Formats: sequence, structure tokens, C-alpha cells
Amino acid sequence: NGHPPAETEFSIRLGFLAETDKLKSVYRASRLLSGHRRENSAEHSWHIMIFAWILSGQAAPDVSIDRVLQMLLLHDIVEIDAGDHPIHGQVDHAAQEAEEQAAAERLFGLLPSEQKAEFLSLWQEFEAADSPDARFAKAVDRFQAPVGNLATDGGTWADYNVTLAQIDQRVGVPIRRGAPGLWAWLKPQLDTYFATTVST
Amino acid sequence: NGHPPAETEFSIRLGFLAETDKLKSVYRASRLLSGHRRENSAEHSWHIMIFAWILSGQAAPDVSIDRVLQMLLLHDIVEIDAGDHPIHGQVDHAAQEAEEQAAAERLFGLLPSEQKAEFLSLWQEFEAADSPDARFAKAVDRFQAPVGNLATDGGTWADYNVTLAQIDQRVGVPIRRGAPGLWAWLKPQLDTYFATTVST
Ligand SMILES: [Ca+2]
Repeated sequence: NGHPPAETEFSIRLGFLAETDKLKSVYRASRLLSGHRRENSAEHSWHIMIFAWILSGQAAPDVSIDRVLQMLLLHDIVEIDAGDHPIHGQVDHAAQEAEEQAAAERLFGLLPSEQKAEFLSLWQEFEAADSPDARFAKAVDRFQAPVGNLATDGGTWADYNVTLAQIDQRVGVPIRRGAPGLWAWLKPQLDTYFATTVST
Repeated sequence: NGHPPAETEFSIRLGFLAETDKLKSVYRASRLLSGHRRENSAEHSWHIMIFAWILSGQAAPDVSIDRVLQMLLLHDIVEIDAGDHPIHGQVDHAAQEAEEQAAAERLFGLLPSEQKAEFLSLWQEFEAADSPDARFAKAVDRFQAPVGNLATDGGTWADYNVTLAQIDQRVGVPIRRGAPGLWAWLKPQLDTYFATTVST
């Protein structure tokens, strides 16, 4: 309509948007395929949204890709406060969960209450991974890194002494639940990679 | 269903996903709010999807935010081949358009034909900016950089000797078409900024 939005409410939204800029400076364990540097969580979020869309044929028939994209768009915002926890690191999972819950409260709490509720609810659904949309989103989130590692001679697996058993637990379980076809594709390649490198 | 996807078609999809990793290494004229480095086009795409969602109240009533997010998710992929063209640079617009069209053909052409058609069509709709969804997507794409520049003492405007008339043309026109309320908010702040700095 051409009228400027109500100033107070609008500056609240812009404050949240400025805060989310910080996700571009949260770096993950994984590297770009070029190897030049580590990947940050903002560009990672963008990339796995592309993964979800391109691989949507692997989702269960009742999955809404639009909701999956929404979840993946916001799923890592908590890392602005809580940091990225490499999935194969030694972490206290209960402490990490509490930290991320507090981060979600603070960060989504920067939004007007209606959008706070929407974001918090989608993030909690993603974390709980017990709806079809969240299970597929979680599977895609776990699928990107091993694909990149396989394409780059094991990538960061060697740096972290990752074992096939760890991958089966931290990657295999969520992928089997949310996109079993992706795991059926991944598993034989993981077997081959670890059979030829694990004993060196 | 737990069966692996058909190998040939699947490796085609993975090839496209690997190719899109390169967007993380295409750098824009704009900087992170922290000022530490330039922003790349992958994390920029992520951020403006957040902008679109948070500012969806500024869209016309017939806009589908899900389609806007889809457009913004893929809108910069052409830059993998065509590079980022700063909007205030001296460019041959016809040449740039031809370059981006060729990039879209090659990059989306890496996909299976059905998804190629879907991506190409969404990208063309975004570029043409003559549907309500595309007009809002384009407005949001142009809104982020000036907001960032205003928040950081003019940011990169001074480096490029940008004038208010240039901003009105390259930023004002698309924002007025797709989200006039955002322009009504932005304009007085631009006036103030340029009134106090342009003569120094
Ligand atoms: Ca993560």
C-alpha cells in the first residue's frame, strides 16, 4: 500500500535480521568441496535446502517440501549462540540440548510474538524429528557431509578419526528414518571407503 | 522404501549438488555486518530467504511466500558461471543478461529434464519480475544491501561512489514495485544519509 510499516514492530524485525547475519561466521567441521576453507552454517543451510528440493523424490509421499525448506532455513540459527557441534565430537548431549533450547528462546524471542511462536515450533519439530517433514529434513541435513567427504577422499573423517560405527549411529540412524533410499545408496560406498582406509 | 535410487539418474542429481557448492566461493560487493569479509552469494541467498519470511507482511496479499523462498533459493545459482555483477557497477546489461541466460541453461541443464524445466522456469519468472511472487522476491533481494549499508555507516557505498540517484534507479524501482512499504521506510533514511555525506 506504500505506507511505511509501524516503526517499533519493524525495527524489531530488522534487529532479528541483523542478528542472523552472525550465522555466516559460525564455521562447521566440514570443508567446501574445493577444500579451500571450512563451510559456515549459513551457506550450509542454503545448500541443504537445495539438497532437499533436488532429492525430494526420496521423501515419503506425505512430506511437504515447502515445510522441509522452512525447517532447514531456520534449523541452524541457534548456532549463533550455541555454536556448531561436530556430530562426531565427544559432547554432552544433554548440555548441548539445553544450550540450543536457550539459544532458540533468546534468538526467536527477538521476533514479534506470532513469528517467535512459528519459528520456535518449527525448530522444535525439526529437533524432535518425529513428524514426516522433520524426519526428511534431518535426513538431508545428515546426508550432505558424508557425500562431500566421499567426493574428497574422506574429507575431514581422517582429521577426526571417525569410524564406520560412529557414522552408522550419528548419520545412518536419522537417514534410515527419514530417507531410507539415501542410506541404501550411501552405505555400500561407506563400506568401501572404510574397508580400504581404516587400517592404514 | 529403502531401495537405493536408480544409479544414473541419482548421480546426475548429485553432480548438480556438487556444482552448486561453488556458489559459496562467489563473492559480492557487500560485506558482512561485522565488516570482516565480503558476503558470498550462497549465504546471501540464505539470508534474503529469512528476510522474505520475516518481512512477508509487506508482500501483496496474493503472494505465496513458499514460491518466493523457492525463487530466492535458486536465484543466484547462475552466478557460478556469470559471476556477481554489483548493481551499481558500469555494466553492459544486454551482455550480462545473455551471460546469465547461458549460465542458467548450462547449470540447470545438469538436472534431470523435469527439474531442469522447473528451475529454469522459476529463475526466468524471478528475472522477468512480472508476477506478484517474483516482484516481492526481487524487492527483498534489493532491500538487504542498503539496510546493511545504513547500519554500517554507508558500508560499501563510499567505495563505489554510489549516488542517491543510482540507488533510486537500481534499488528504488524494484522495491517500489514489489514491496512499496519497504521503500517508504527506506527512502527517508537514504535521504538523511546522502544529505549528510554526499558533499564530503
Ligand atoms: Ca547443524
